[in-house]
Amino acid sequence: MKKILLLSLLFILNSLNAQVLESPSKALKLNFQLTPNGKPSYSLTYKNKPVVLNSLLGVYLKGDSDLASNFKIDSIGMTTFNESWKPVLGEQSKIVNHYNQLTAALSQTGSKRRVNIIFKLYDEGLAFRYEFPKQQNLNYFIISDEKSEFNLAGNHKTFWIPGDFDSQEYAYNETLLSEVNSAKIDMNNGIGLKSIAGNFMVQSPLMMKSADNLYLNIFEAAVVNYPVMHLDLNPTTFALTSHLVPNAIGDKAYLQTPSVSPWRTIMVSDDARDIVSSKMILNLNEPSKIDDTSWIKPMKYVGIWWEMHVGKSTWDYAGSQNAQNTESRELIASGKHGATTANTKRYIDFAAKHGFDGVLVEGWNVGWEDWFGNWKEDVFDFTTPYPDYDLAEINAYAKSKGVKMIMHHETSGSVANYERHLDRALELMKKYGYPAAKSGYVGRIIPRGEFHDGQTMVNHFNFVARRFADYKMMVNSHESSRPTGYHRTYPNYIAAEAARGNEFNAWSVGNPPMHETILPFTRLLGGPMDYTPGIFEIKMSVYDKNKKEQVHTTLAKQLALYVTMYSPLQMAADLPENYEKYPDAFQFIKDVAADWDDSNYLEAEPGDYLTVARKAKGKEEWFLGAITDENARKTKINLSFLTPGKKYKAVIYQDGKTAHWEKNPINYEIITKTVTYKDFIQLNLAAGGGTAISFTPIN
Amino acid sequence: MKKILLLSLLFILNSLNAQVLESPSKALKLNFQLTPNGKPSYSLTYKNKPVVLNSLLGVYLKGDSDLASNFKIDSIGMTTFNESWKPVLGEQSKIVNHYNQLTAALSQTGSKRRVNIIFKLYDEGLAFRYEFPKQQNLNYFIISDEKSEFNLAGNHKTFWIPGDFDSQEYAYNETLLSEVNSAKIDMNNGIGLKSIAGNFMVQSPLMMKSADNLYLNIFEAAVVNYPVMHLDLNPTTFALTSHLVPNAIGDKAYLQTPSVSPWRTIMVSDDARDIVSSKMILNLNEPSKIDDTSWIKPMKYVGIWWEMHVGKSTWDYAGSQNAQNTESRELIASGKHGATTANTKRYIDFAAKHGFDGVLVEGWNVGWEDWFGNWKEDVFDFTTPYPDYDLAEINAYAKSKGVKMIMHHETSGSVANYERHLDRALELMKKYGYPAAKSGYVGRIIPRGEFHDGQTMVNHFNFVARRFADYKMMVNSHESSRPTGYHRTYPNYIAAEAARGNEFNAWSVGNPPMHETILPFTRLLGGPMDYTPGIFEIKMSVYDKNKKEQVHTTLAKQLALYVTMYSPLQMAADLPENYEKYPDAFQFIKDVAADWDDSNYLEAEPGDYLTVARKAKGKEEWFLGAITDENARKTKINLSFLTPGKKYKAVIYQDGKTAHWEKNPINYEIITKTVTYKDFIQLNLAAGGGTAISFTPIN
Repeated sequence: MKKILLLSLLFILNSLNAQVLESPSKALKLNFQLTPNGKPSYSLTYKNKPVVLNSLLGVYLKGDSDLASNFKIDSIGMTTFNESWKPVLGEQSKIVNHYNQLTAALSQTGSKRRVNIIFKLYDEGLAFRYEFPKQQNLNYFIISDEKSEFNLAGNHKTFWIPGDFDSQEYAYNETLLSEVNSAKIDMNNGIGLKSIAGNFMVQSPLMMKSADNLYLNIFEAAVVNYPVMHLDLNPTTFALTSHLVPNAIGDKAYLQTPSVSPWRTIMVSDDARDIVSSKMILNLNEPSKIDDTSWIKPMKYVGIWWEMHVGKSTWDYAGSQNAQNTESRELIASGKHGATTANTKRYIDFAAKHGFDGVLVEGWNVGWEDWFGNWKEDVFDFTTPYPDYDLAEINAYAKSKGVKMIMHHETSGSVANYERHLDRALELMKKYGYPAAKSGYVGRIIPRGEFHDGQTMVNHFNFVARRFADYKMMVNSHESSRPTGYHRTYPNYIAAEAARGNEFNAWSVGNPPMHETILPFTRLLGGPMDYTPGIFEIKMSVYDKNKKEQVHTTLAKQLALYVTMYSPLQMAADLPENYEKYPDAFQFIKDVAADWDDSNYLEAEPGDYLTVARKAKGKEEWFLGAITDENARKTKINLSFLTPGKKYKAVIYQDGKTAHWEKNPINYEIITKTVTYKDFIQLNLAAGGGTAISFTPIN
Repeated sequence: MKKILLLSLLFILNSLNAQVLESPSKALKLNFQLTPNGKPSYSLTYKNKPVVLNSLLGVYLKGDSDLASNFKIDSIGMTTFNESWKPVLGEQSKIVNHYNQLTAALSQTGSKRRVNIIFKLYDEGLAFRYEFPKQQNLNYFIISDEKSEFNLAGNHKTFWIPGDFDSQEYAYNETLLSEVNSAKIDMNNGIGLKSIAGNFMVQSPLMMKSADNLYLNIFEAAVVNYPVMHLDLNPTTFALTSHLVPNAIGDKAYLQTPSVSPWRTIMVSDDARDIVSSKMILNLNEPSKIDDTSWIKPMKYVGIWWEMHVGKSTWDYAGSQNAQNTESRELIASGKHGATTANTKRYIDFAAKHGFDGVLVEGWNVGWEDWFGNWKEDVFDFTTPYPDYDLAEINAYAKSKGVKMIMHHETSGSVANYERHLDRALELMKKYGYPAAKSGYVGRIIPRGEFHDGQTMVNHFNFVARRFADYKMMVNSHESSRPTGYHRTYPNYIAAEAARGNEFNAWSVGNPPMHETILPFTRLLGGPMDYTPGIFEIKMSVYDKNKKEQVHTTLAKQLALYVTMYSPLQMAADLPENYEKYPDAFQFIKDVAADWDDSNYLEAEPGDYLTVARKAKGKEEWFLGAITDENARKTKINLSFLTPGKKYKAVIYQDGKTAHWEKNPINYEIITKTVTYKDFIQLNLAAGGGTAISFTPIN
């Protein structure tokens, strides 16, 4: 770890209200100034092109006062920071954190309240936050609204999803900013709970591309004790304004000084790879608060999960969502229950045979007969297994096979109930040696009136991560608010879903082929995603000939996703029997790493394609993933990322000649070559296809 | 336990819509019928006098439908029930549960939804509830309002407090119904958080007296998974209508069939003693769900508590409510902290010397520097002691002295935080062998938007009782919703405050002398109250000569309260050094029982006086308490309750000749007599005074 303070300047200013800050490379320039009314404002240019036009900053308080006007500048501080640090798990073993900082210390005339606005200018973008220092005139306060503006310089192309306070599980819409309108999108998209607060509200991360080929991304980092920020768009002026998610009574955030807002980020580059590879969001989070991280490990896992999505078995023991089987009488087995002792042992055997670390079992605990859609508070107790699921026997069996069990905690949104039971749930996990749990938040939140994205829920997700850390356990949340880098601070928060995952392909219109080319520019900026790739039986008609659903992919692309979709927790989501049909392709999933020394984004265009090569942590092995959208794609890849002087066996898992995501998705071929860093490889990606390559050194 | 079903009649009715039910004594008559619009209605008479005029019943659902009209009667069932049962702790060792029941099974034309209205007619009053059976056409439902009417027959005198969703800590107003108006009462009453929803809304239990000397009481029993019921008064027609406490988004109750509402109760008698001694509320609750109740024991206790109220010490370690001492720097001891190891040992010594079961210590845990008034979520962690409080040492010391420590859990209303920490708190208690905790809920509730009296909080209080039961521990909640008999079902819910307690006398206008004569007719009907009697140093000027506050009592009345204010958990609230000044009077507190074989209410008039004699559980000892309001009172008491053939030593603790709650409150005298059941004792109660008597058999 290397920390250099290059310069530290402090001006006391009276009339000089405009300040300029440059990024280390000098490509980005921030201008900060107060308006004549004392309103903080900023603008941003990239290589002298305007990116954000003059935009106001400020926070409004409950009860008709604000921290947005009548400010004067008490001081301006400028510093440079350059250090590197090692993430516990990650895309690279060393992360550089290099930025120039401007701290504007402001005080309000009249109220004498003080706010600092802190700008950090990285080479790939700007970050700013509000800091509320300890002070006499501001202690507790309630934020009624934050109005941070991002007045964009043009009508950019954008990849957007509706500003929904309860779900990010939308497919992306690729339109101009002027065309954004949630009223115009097809809502028959499989999302069970929608809370869209306005037709012109969009979610961050908001990825954009300007007419002159600048890539822009607006997001936030370190959302801690604060609600999620959505963005109100003016589709005429292309102005975006922060919109915080309210609580049950309409308040946004409860704070006490000293405190800070999350960072608001604007990434800019003329190379899309700078966005997708940026570690700015991580850098803006606090370092790990866990001292001993030896128990935090990457995991590849299989599980009793996809078989419920495809309709082969059920989560519940007594019939699907069949409320009348509960309470009033004994559970009567339907015979379709997935989480049985025998079936679990089958998965354990499969995991052991193929070298997977863990087995997830969903539907193991009582409550699934009536768990969903009714805002029910007491659903699960997180400790009582179904009668056909023998916890002790299963855990002993897994142990004998060297496989870890992954616990499942579906809350159905009843967070009050989960928090009441959490310690009991963790004690059960401890008793049996579970290293991790997957949590779920399907449904309307209880406490009633709260949204998934409000301050209460952000605090809940972070609390759960911390509580799991107390027990030295990892957590992977589904239907949570989307991560903003808190896994730097609590690296046991190993992954999250928090976007439209592969599961939607099983039972809805699914995810269009471009979906996975956008996620790395949006959702993945905040943290690893448990996307659950690896579906080999791509068409659901294999389970039921009347089914029209399918994964919008080729088989080879499913392999590539293990590389393009970074996560230290990776599921091989398909059924054991399906993998056994394609053992040669399955080999890639068995081989691929989940933790990395280095990552090279070779090609990237949001909505179109992505190619990345990564070096396995502590090994000389490399893995490459290349994916494309609905368009076939040919590209020649320079292997210069490989270590000079070494020879590698490259096993290339690629789309077959007639492969096509819709017409012939399972068509693939596997080619083996010997290569060095001087070589090129020609990739031929089918429509909706991909290529996965493993590089192993030849001694 | 004896259960007799005398008759069971079932009519299938088409046109006959009016039904009459009589109480076992036939004094009460209920008339139930449907209006022409199919609205359920009832009326009630007592000895042929109208008590409740024709009143509608029904529940309204969110989304513009109701369970209040368009009903037809499917069947009418009539049964008689007579059993007796033994409470774990109580005012009597055997309770008779005798009533006649009418069950009206109703179905709604059109919706085909079914509701049963169940009436139970006891000799002392009517109870009714709504039952929502399991059915095809009603599963989950949200109650937007319950409109159960109580159209009273006259402009009765009433003892009322405002319909406040967050507090019952008001002194009672004694007015006619037509004079009820919360806008006219002095709100400078020491209550920190008020949420009064309307000037003509009052709380139950609502005690009334008619012009022709009928005593009426409207209350509810078995409030489980339902909000508290307040009452909307029409001060012109004297109609009362139920008003349920809303949640954060305005909904009242979330239910799923099969379920029931709480019981709505109307007690009536021409003898006030029938109300005050009624066990109807307990009878309407479910029997104990705790099998082994051997660990549930009455407790008399002392504690580090009153010394904070009188200003001698503080709850916090670093200065009173001094937020700046927290977070940003180390706690700096103010030197006034009450909960020190040394002071606690002093209380333990005192408890051991005088035979008390337990010692409560408040302010033992970190967080008190900034706990109150700011809707703060993370206040206490319930496990971290202040640096001057040695948990291990204190608990070992208490154990060596045979004294139990009572834990204190102040939540400051942050229920979310408490539930998150509850198991850790209970584990700490288990580690050190605490048998019980006192909990507190001072302040606005978190989840924000919830009220103390809403369904969420009712469920919380009941959940805590159950969770304590899991650990075989007792709980005594302060600032909770007022009890409605749940301590029958969970007898470890040993007491609650949930009304204006003695503490208000220390630092506010206090409680007028009549206060304790009303509580047995109101708050105590629902369960034991931790009123914290026993204040000997009555005037606060003893601590600070500038203080004008005082307890509105004589010393003798403080002794009488141990008998008149039933609770199996009784505090000797004053300071050890104060008790040591009056050892002869203190002897009564040492002697008095807290659990009883039998109770005889000898005289009762709400707002004026109360005299009760109780027999100690399993002993031949009797204790008598007599109290009066601001008026002095002379009365001759017939000792016929004593066991014939036995002689008793009666020690009479009475007001001295010049005693007066304001002018000479500490003036008392102690007289010893030998008495038998044939004797009378003349009581002379000073203004605001009382008498306490112990009767011990002479061998």
